[in-house]
Amino acid sequence: MNRRYMLPEMAKIFSEENHFQLMLDVSITVCEAMADIGQMPKAVYEDIKAKAAYDLDRIDEIEAICHNTVVAFLNSVAESIGPSGDYLYRGISAMDIKDTALSLQIRKASDLLLAKLTHLRALLAEMTKKYKDTLMIGRTHATHAEPITFGWKMALWTKEIDRSIVRLNNARNVMAVGKLSGAVGTFSNIDPRVETFVCRRLGLYPAYVTNQMLQRDRHAEFMTTLAIIGGSLEKFALDLRILQSTDVQEVEENMSAGQTHSAVMPHKRNPVISERICGMSRILRGNAMAALEDIAIWNERDASHNVPEDMLIGDSCCLLDYMLYHFTQTMENLIVYPENMRRNIDETVGLIFSQRVMIRMMDKGASWNTAYEIIHRNATEAWNQHIDFQFLLLEDEEVAKYLAKDELMEIFDLNNFVRNIDFVFHRAGLD
Amino acid sequence: MNRRYMLPEMAKIFSEENHFQLMLDVSITVCEAMADIGQMPKAVYEDIKAKAAYDLDRIDEIEAICHNTVVAFLNSVAESIGPSGDYLYRGISAMDIKDTALSLQIRKASDLLLAKLTHLRALLAEMTKKYKDTLMIGRTHATHAEPITFGWKMALWTKEIDRSIVRLNNARNVMAVGKLSGAVGTFSNIDPRVETFVCRRLGLYPAYVTNQMLQRDRHAEFMTTLAIIGGSLEKFALDLRILQSTDVQEVEENMSAGQTHSAVMPHKRNPVISERICGMSRILRGNAMAALEDIAIWNERDASHNVPEDMLIGDSCCLLDYMLYHFTQTMENLIVYPENMRRNIDETVGLIFSQRVMIRMMDKGASWNTAYEIIHRNATEAWNQHIDFQFLLLEDEEVAKYLAKDELMEIFDLNNFVRNIDFVFHRAGLD
Amino acid sequence: MNRRYMLPEMAKIFSEENHFQLMLDVSITVCEAMADIGQMPKAVYEDIKAKAAYDLDRIDEIEAICHNTVVAFLNSVAESIGPSGDYLYRGISAMDIKDTALSLQIRKASDLLLAKLTHLRALLAEMTKKYKDTLMIGRTHATHAEPITFGWKMALWTKEIDRSIVRLNNARNVMAVGKLSGAVGTFSNIDPRVETFVCRRLGLYPAYVTNQMLQRDRHAEFMTTLAIIGGSLEKFALDLRILQSTDVQEVEENMSAGQTHSAVMPHKRNPVISERICGMSRILRGNAMAALEDIAIWNERDASHNVPEDMLIGDSCCLLDYMLYHFTQTMENLIVYPENMRRNIDETVGLIFSQRVMIRMMDKGASWNTAYEIIHRNATEAWNQHIDFQFLLLEDEEVAKYLAKDELMEIFDLNNFVRNIDFVFHRAGLD
Amino acid sequence: MNRRYMLPEMAKIFSEENHFQLMLDVSITVCEAMADIGQMPKAVYEDIKAKAAYDLDRIDEIEAICHNTVVAFLNSVAESIGPSGDYLYRGISAMDIKDTALSLQIRKASDLLLAKLTHLRALLAEMTKKYKDTLMIGRTHATHAEPITFGWKMALWTKEIDRSIVRLNNARNVMAVGKLSGAVGTFSNIDPRVETFVCRRLGLYPAYVTNQMLQRDRHAEFMTTLAIIGGSLEKFALDLRILQSTDVQEVEENMSAGQTHSAVMPHKRNPVISERICGMSRILRGNAMAALEDIAIWNERDASHNVPEDMLIGDSCCLLDYMLYHFTQTMENLIVYPENMRRNIDETVGLIFSQRVMIRMMDKGASWNTAYEIIHRNATEAWNQHIDFQFLLLEDEEVAKYLAKDELMEIFDLNNFVRNIDFVFHRAGLD
Repeated sequence: MNRRYMLPEMAKIFSEENHFQLMLDVSITVCEAMADIGQMPKAVYEDIKAKAAYDLDRIDEIEAICHNTVVAFLNSVAESIGPSGDYLYRGISAMDIKDTALSLQIRKASDLLLAKLTHLRALLAEMTKKYKDTLMIGRTHATHAEPITFGWKMALWTKEIDRSIVRLNNARNVMAVGKLSGAVGTFSNIDPRVETFVCRRLGLYPAYVTNQMLQRDRHAEFMTTLAIIGGSLEKFALDLRILQSTDVQEVEENMSAGQTHSAVMPHKRNPVISERICGMSRILRGNAMAALEDIAIWNERDASHNVPEDMLIGDSCCLLDYMLYHFTQTMENLIVYPENMRRNIDETVGLIFSQRVMIRMMDKGASWNTAYEIIHRNATEAWNQHIDFQFLLLEDEEVAKYLAKDELMEIFDLNNFVRNIDFVFHRAGLD
Repeated sequence: MNRRYMLPEMAKIFSEENHFQLMLDVSITVCEAMADIGQMPKAVYEDIKAKAAYDLDRIDEIEAICHNTVVAFLNSVAESIGPSGDYLYRGISAMDIKDTALSLQIRKASDLLLAKLTHLRALLAEMTKKYKDTLMIGRTHATHAEPITFGWKMALWTKEIDRSIVRLNNARNVMAVGKLSGAVGTFSNIDPRVETFVCRRLGLYPAYVTNQMLQRDRHAEFMTTLAIIGGSLEKFALDLRILQSTDVQEVEENMSAGQTHSAVMPHKRNPVISERICGMSRILRGNAMAALEDIAIWNERDASHNVPEDMLIGDSCCLLDYMLYHFTQTMENLIVYPENMRRNIDETVGLIFSQRVMIRMMDKGASWNTAYEIIHRNATEAWNQHIDFQFLLLEDEEVAKYLAKDELMEIFDLNNFVRNIDFVFHRAGLD
Repeated sequence: MNRRYMLPEMAKIFSEENHFQLMLDVSITVCEAMADIGQMPKAVYEDIKAKAAYDLDRIDEIEAICHNTVVAFLNSVAESIGPSGDYLYRGISAMDIKDTALSLQIRKASDLLLAKLTHLRALLAEMTKKYKDTLMIGRTHATHAEPITFGWKMALWTKEIDRSIVRLNNARNVMAVGKLSGAVGTFSNIDPRVETFVCRRLGLYPAYVTNQMLQRDRHAEFMTTLAIIGGSLEKFALDLRILQSTDVQEVEENMSAGQTHSAVMPHKRNPVISERICGMSRILRGNAMAALEDIAIWNERDASHNVPEDMLIGDSCCLLDYMLYHFTQTMENLIVYPENMRRNIDETVGLIFSQRVMIRMMDKGASWNTAYEIIHRNATEAWNQHIDFQFLLLEDEEVAKYLAKDELMEIFDLNNFVRNIDFVFHRAGLD
Repeated sequence: MNRRYMLPEMAKIFSEENHFQLMLDVSITVCEAMADIGQMPKAVYEDIKAKAAYDLDRIDEIEAICHNTVVAFLNSVAESIGPSGDYLYRGISAMDIKDTALSLQIRKASDLLLAKLTHLRALLAEMTKKYKDTLMIGRTHATHAEPITFGWKMALWTKEIDRSIVRLNNARNVMAVGKLSGAVGTFSNIDPRVETFVCRRLGLYPAYVTNQMLQRDRHAEFMTTLAIIGGSLEKFALDLRILQSTDVQEVEENMSAGQTHSAVMPHKRNPVISERICGMSRILRGNAMAALEDIAIWNERDASHNVPEDMLIGDSCCLLDYMLYHFTQTMENLIVYPENMRRNIDETVGLIFSQRVMIRMMDKGASWNTAYEIIHRNATEAWNQHIDFQFLLLEDEEVAKYLAKDELMEIFDLNNFVRNIDFVFHRAGLD
């Protein structure tokens, strides 16, 4: 994890200290469970609970010899306890502790991300209403198509976040499982009631069947879900980058006080957050690939998944957390230029109305061929000469055969394009 | 799509003909809707319904000029109709037709895949019971750990398929949407009731808000889900490959009559299906990456997603379909060698009982250090001299202080390892 | 391979027929070699040469039984020969034939791609000169920075293609190897002179050491190289898409006669080829990932690489071939609008000169702070009021302390920005 | 970067401090160049050289406002100098400094990696000779094929490393470029001689043509090369994991003193380093994907590449460095069990000789059909009854028609399989 691209709360979840602390919590809860079912003297449990601790330096020392962080951790904890340590980890495998702790980290991380998604969703829903009538040109293939409103765009983003909230919630639940079933998942040396007790206490479900580990299709679903959400944020950010370009100037990331892209070139307001979000989503994708590869583990377990998980799950959570935070900030402070949006609509001298005029002419009896020929002729002239399209049509006698002047005036009403907005917003629950 | 790696039913869904046929169905249903709400004369609709057709050669001809398959299709259909064709595609964009047809393809493909997953799930559940008591060594890090049963492995696979059925069902529903909202999604030139009518008729939901297209987070969820399922199948196949190796020989893909890997080397039974499944899952992952990149489309649409979707969605569906079919066939006919499984358990001269003995000694009052020292000494001798571990322990006077001979005899019972299998199978709903 | 996205010459290389034909060529050349070193009667070789053929239907029949395409091919060939067939494939493994044939396909594909790259390189070098003085604004972060010329951009692209020619040539040579060393690469049942003879005859090098196959780091280098070239083309295409947008209008893909994006909206000239190239590059990346995974094969070989290679190598070659062809066509016919480029330069009312003015003031003795304060004040006013920056400076008394009017006039010369173009073009060998 | 998976020397190259130090070095060298060509007073240069420094806390402070690490760095340096700071960064863009510093990091990292590759190569070449005659079974599809020697495997690995040394050297040279050409690469406000001077001084080449940055096809080549090398190491590690499995036991990672996988299960020697290498290679692949996406930058630059590069280039270098180091250590201390290799060869009761016998019978005049029928019958009996194949053949009267007993004795000589080893090793320059 790179300290520049993470926020403290998420970083803490994936800190070494927190991972060890959670493994310690799981370890002690195991002892509590064993005491509860009479397989460990209560006094021993109390002793363990009072003394159990890990020592970072000692873990490093042991790991230098055994080359296994979790084993080093377990030894360090056992050392901290004294004689009662003999009762520790009886029948428990290192992966029991580590995998259950990882599930706790992911659940907490999911909750943080879900909170940020929900906050962003609320903001976008608000912007949907605020900019409901703010007309702008819709762009397809980077060329001007027909008008939309900025609120319409916000509505589309809102519903996309809705889908991702569902996805992440699903992935969170798939990961809300613990496992305390021993070396190959058979409870060969541990009572299954321990698992039930510990999972209930920690707010997890016991995985139905395991081998030495929780199966990695779960983690892959989580990581690909993060990548999908990253892809959506990238789409939004990409849109902002285009709309903020000097050639468009319809929106602008609001620079914080003192932020200067270029003091002597005030037009140079770079969409730095949006660009960063686009780059970060590439990392989420690459990390998702590694997670997909991690599914195919040998037999009852191999350790190849370890390093990818140690490095990438925390990285992806921190990055998405950062992306959500900064994207939300950006949207909260976004400067919108309705007047520039209107100016850009006019860029195409009214040609955006051509399809409407043609359909109306056909409604009035023109054949497709006739209507097409008339519109094509006028549209080409309007574009080539940069003359107002409506003006040309009003002058055209062929057009007059089908459409009266007041009809033409009415057709060239921008609001017509978005007249179904109430229907759409209502259907989407955004009114 | 490579003809060797697909089954006919799935291949048909993604054939050019079917894609065009579905676009034609959507087109005609649009006309039906317009007639229904009185925006198209009934007679025109009947005329269109009677005549509408596409012509593959003509599509190729038009496409050679306009470089756009869907536009070529629309023109070919319009040509087939005659005068009534003037009413066709009024207010409809090419993507309205194409995207709705794609949703229909994906829904049908999902149903095929779900049927195959359900069939595989049933088979694995059956094998769970059949091999419930078939002891085999559990392997972690490719080294022998503790025994499991082959049924236990099947139980784990069954539950993994359960999770993927849920995932694919979710992804299917996210894709079960249509869109007939025109050039930028505003219904600028089409009545929203058309979309409602058409979607209901086709068994889809209308997407709440769109621009020119359905948003690609939907398709990305579908494609990453296929990759996750592929990863699970790869895991299963990888396990079979190891278990079938000449060095293990615990299972074997059943060769169909006449299939000879090497007629003169009868031991050379290559796990060809399993290897193929492993390779195919790599393609599913790569395709998922492209689908993740496809999410970030410019503004109201760009066309960069087109070719990846045209090529990869069908490829991934066909591959996963093939993998599921052949993996299920493989499992259905899998040869299991229980005697070899038992032979391999004995490979480690009883050392798999070492943890059990140690815990029992501690239960009988030995300190961890004492128990460890005794077990370590005997285990090392057993391994190095290839002498039976139980035999050594029975001879060891230090052991005798804690464990009587009959206790030692009882500990060395393989069934002890899996004594919790009823609990686990019941919990998993597999009993 | 999708027939819409490939050109005939490349498609032919990766057709089933060509793959079989090349395998047949290798097979016959092996016999020639064996005859040459006296291990096969000349008459038998002549007989084989005269009769050897494969039969597609027969291959399908045999494959339906043996599930192995190459084995089916070998049997079909053997059947075609009669008694002399006994001499065929003595000591040769199926992979000997298949892998050597694949190398021949890749070499031929590389040559096609290199020819297209060389052609594109020549075109870009020509455009470098043609547009050397065509001023346009340079854009960083999508906002206007300082002017460049369109030829400068072409120079940068030219040198990027140069690097890719080197890369592809390297990858081609790494793949120009054959292998006829038998089941595990030991020449256990075949004379090494056969390999030497066959490779020399086919224009390949014998791989120094093999197991059952050529090592897949070779193929991975080839596939990642295709993905890198795809990335470069995507960059170029992305640039065109931005420059062609309605909001910029500096270049345009020339539509072929009859190609209409929208007949009634003449401004709607979609950069369809450029968008397609961007999408295709995603597939190249995904395919490269699978190729990277294919490196790690088990022991002396497993077959997991087969399907990815059967499907993706041809796909990637066909796609890149298509991309190079269409990108070159696009560039050859590109419409460039120098007047729009100039218009866009003026969009920022002269602020692009601010850095130059500031440096000159400092050259004349202004401290950084003083220069900055003066420029900042004027730049902000110019931008906010949309007033010409030079005009404001000419009016500013503080500026006058450092710069005379004629100096200010001279500074605001666009050509100053690109005064080092001769140096750069000469250094790049593009003058 | 995760501190557990990196070595100090490589970690230092990609530390924040080193990145800033190199940017400072570049900055000062720029001043030296300007002084050298008379565009900066010598005294100012001396002053800058004496005082220029950066302050980590101050950088954080400034970055919190301007959201741009490099700009914060440049400001911090300027602040350290006083009045002479006015001369700093005149005409230089932030990317000039950052990109040139990054090239220096990558060059240094490449040199470290090349040294490790060279060391590994030498070790493998040595092992090639050491184990030249150590017979083991070759495995294809995880089933026993024909014998090879362990040295043969080492030879194959040696040549694969050779190819990667060439690749990495190429990638290193492609990255050995600097760039000091200003905001859009036109040297608009800086003398090109500065770039020439600085690059020569730092041991880089000036890039022929740039925009605001070095083009990212260069970095993508570097990153995909690391992924290819990772793939090779994964292949080697995968082989070791199989060979170390309890079911094979032909090699073993040598545990360092005190390293205990399981003290009471001495057979439990997990190939932990090899598993780790396999997992790490997944990260290298994912990172390579992000680097491939980074190629397609907008126009003269966007900043989307920044975070992926800040995080992933260092990560990939550190991981590959770690992998190379630990893989080399593993090989250096690898325990090889020739006796187990021999034992495993015998697993298939001599069937590995079947192809040899058959060819010899045909040499002696048997038709393919006859030879096949005889061998097939005996091989099947040998395998099913677990009887020695040679024994059966010696008893078979049909065999006797073609092969005398002494001929059969001679055929069943394992060394025959590898009789061409001298030829191959000599050809590979490994004798």
